[in-house]
Amino acid sequence: MRNIRLVLEYDGTDFAGWQRQPNARTVQEVVEQAISAMVHEPVLLRGAGRTDAGVHARAQVANFRTVTAIPCEGLRRGLNGTLPPDVAIVTADDVDDAFDARRSARGKLYAYRVWNAPSRSPFRARTSWHLYRPLDVTAMNEAACALLGEHDFSAFRAAGCDRKNPVRVLRRAEWLAEEPGLLALTLEGTAFLRNMVRVIAGTLVEVGLHARPVSDVGRILVGKDRTEAGRTAPAHGLTLEHVSYAV
Amino acid sequence: MRNIRLVLEYDGTDFAGWQRQPNARTVQEVVEQAISAMVHEPVLLRGAGRTDAGVHARAQVANFRTVTAIPCEGLRRGLNGTLPPDVAIVTADDVDDAFDARRSARGKLYAYRVWNAPSRSPFRARTSWHLYRPLDVTAMNEAACALLGEHDFSAFRAAGCDRKNPVRVLRRAEWLAEEPGLLALTLEGTAFLRNMVRVIAGTLVEVGLHARPVSDVGRILVGKDRTEAGRTAPAHGLTLEHVSYAV
Repeated sequence: MRNIRLVLEYDGTDFAGWQRQPNARTVQEVVEQAISAMVHEPVLLRGAGRTDAGVHARAQVANFRTVTAIPCEGLRRGLNGTLPPDVAIVTADDVDDAFDARRSARGKLYAYRVWNAPSRSPFRARTSWHLYRPLDVTAMNEAACALLGEHDFSAFRAAGCDRKNPVRVLRRAEWLAEEPGLLALTLEGTAFLRNMVRVIAGTLVEVGLHARPVSDVGRILVGKDRTEAGRTAPAHGLTLEHVSYAV
Repeated sequence: MRNIRLVLEYDGTDFAGWQRQPNARTVQEVVEQAISAMVHEPVLLRGAGRTDAGVHARAQVANFRTVTAIPCEGLRRGLNGTLPPDVAIVTADDVDDAFDARRSARGKLYAYRVWNAPSRSPFRARTSWHLYRPLDVTAMNEAACALLGEHDFSAFRAAGCDRKNPVRVLRRAEWLAEEPGLLALTLEGTAFLRNMVRVIAGTLVEVGLHARPVSDVGRILVGKDRTEAGRTAPAHGLTLEHVSYAV
């Protein structure tokens, strides 16, 4: 039995997220169906991160088991020929049997993008949140520092998040201008709670608009109360950029 | 009578180009209708460049005359509220009565983008041509040099182009990697013939694939025969990036 690792890129706009669910178009289902049609057997695709509806991925990682003899390069090309335009296989590789895209992951890097300009931008509309009032990037970065390190992130997760352990490690939390007007919050950590990136982005944006003081973020973190944090930033600004593994 | 200049950004994917035509969704018509609805009078929008179907613009320039008293800032905001997601007004300004977006233009800058990687990219699919075979950028840039300066570009225009004078000045012709795998051909000149950028891009790409020698481009230019040049590169890789005016 082969174990094959895929790196996938997708525009999440028209997907109801990664995870297969009834009566919805999900990345997992679309890709599983394309693989099954090629290898003539049912496959189960394990994704590293369960991106929500509307969230994008530049390099989602997934793996599946198969008995097919088709070489990886043939799988990659064949899948890209049959998959719809909004999802593609970047690479396909045979990996060790022990590799599991979710459990083997050591870290994830997300980017939350804000188009901060007076007018909306058709080219950036699919992958960034448009905020026309100027953001104070220095204040947002100062506030983001309070989140670095190991913390209980209970205040920064979805109300419905059911993970028992809310402690996570954040290694990087930084806003940068990728181009004039396009701000990206990069968050890198071992793992993330449900909506954690979007709640952090929404809260930092309130700091950037001077609707909250910089000191609020550290205070909210310690208080562990979700109702104290800011709004959940919209899904379409979020992209899973990278998943890292022990070599 | 006021003369108002607009800078527009649009994703050309779902437009049949700039210019108004029967039974087709064009940028000119969509924007003219939005303006007319706001100022309560018919308006005629003059665009600097008549982009073809599928071609994008990051900064198309246009002007129109109106008697409305609405300030430019109100026009910009109002229009962005009513225009569809694939077109937006970046800026709106009152300008001198003599200003004409087309005739006053002194130069245009186009970018033709190629996604040069083994797998197609959902994020880049709308605005770049996917070529999976590696391109020789050095050879393409060497060949592009032959096009610089003032020349009769008869060999590099659409068969149906009816401009009497085929002489144009090219000030810049250069391929650069905007990010890994994303190559952009920047062409800057006084004005362009029909399909000129796309025929040049298509011909240079053949040089980059080693399907033609570098010397072909200079030879084709001198020969003035369209049938000697390469294929017209697809519209969706082309973006009008900038229009310049005498200050």
